[in-house]
Amino acid sequence: MTSANKRGPWQITEQSVRYENPWIRVDHHEVIAPTGKPGIYGTVHFKGTAVAILPLADNGDTWLVGQYRFPLQVYSWELPMGGCPRDEAPLDAAKRELREETGLLAEHYQSLGFFHVSNCITDEEARAFLATGLSEGETEFDDTEELEIRRLPFEEALAMTLDGRITDLVSVAAIQRARLLGLA
Amino acid sequence: MTSANKRGPWQITEQSVRYENPWIRVDHHEVIAPTGKPGIYGTVHFKGTAVAILPLADNGDTWLVGQYRFPLQVYSWELPMGGCPRDEAPLDAAKRELREETGLLAEHYQSLGFFHVSNCITDEEARAFLATGLSEGETEFDDTEELEIRRLPFEEALAMTLDGRITDLVSVAAIQRARLLGLA
Repeated sequence: MTSANKRGPWQITEQSVRYENPWIRVDHHEVIAPTGKPGIYGTVHFKGTAVAILPLADNGDTWLVGQYRFPLQVYSWELPMGGCPRDEAPLDAAKRELREETGLLAEHYQSLGFFHVSNCITDEEARAFLATGLSEGETEFDDTEELEIRRLPFEEALAMTLDGRITDLVSVAAIQRARLLGLA
Repeated sequence: MTSANKRGPWQITEQSVRYENPWIRVDHHEVIAPTGKPGIYGTVHFKGTAVAILPLADNGDTWLVGQYRFPLQVYSWELPMGGCPRDEAPLDAAKRELREETGLLAEHYQSLGFFHVSNCITDEEARAFLATGLSEGETEFDDTEELEIRRLPFEEALAMTLDGRITDLVSVAAIQRARLLGLA
């Protein structure tokens, strides 16, 4: 709990940590809104950045990863992705996640953007990268992960973002942006 | 706290609510991962769905809303959007938010997609709509909101999603999708 302080046009009159684990911290704030109305604001701080990788082979193929997503209770096909701790460079995390999940190594990486994922409640950030100049190595799944890997034409992955078969928002944005930028 | 149960390939051995407010609930789980490894899983349940609206005028203009985002401590330009309670139809919420934030009324709405926003930690869902056949009415800002409204060509909004001036991920996905579907 700290004393009154300003955060932009908001005033925080009281704040406390309500939950914390290695990945997130939940803070509760008593606030005065920009309009002068008193209220509360609960925020979720993400300790890592989400990093997604769109691997693109010379023949136009890409790779998707399938897994059961615990919070949603649904099976989801997405770009290879993972969490990047604050002390790791996002590009290093991208290289690590791509290798661990798909076994792929890439010669070239370029940015597909920086995003604020859900800015009303959380401070989660996401970065996406296009990976080209690919060669295949060994997968090294994280010991909590049970993943399926699928190689498919980029055109089909793009279609999946447009018809609702891919719903993960970072995957949708990265795949669509690659097309709009003329990169895939 | 409940007894052991399965959630897909995960086993939950214990769970408890750690934080709750009118918008989110934070649950802590003791789990056995799909790989058999014991661990913990904290999830954030969103009580409402995020609903974003891309208004498109006959001359090709759209509208963005600017506001200070408390969790990120940044000023953000985004599509008009808001929260849709579970007992409200998303399309009704879209009409309400568009009117409240921009004063616009629309004759036609069509879907720009359904997304899972951040599926590793949260169950947040988002829906986006394209609104056309516009006429101007009165804004009715929510009593916690302090918003700026900007009318601009769709082309400039699209450019802002590609060069990083718009970082809100739902806004990025909806605007880019409208272009990819040939709607704007």
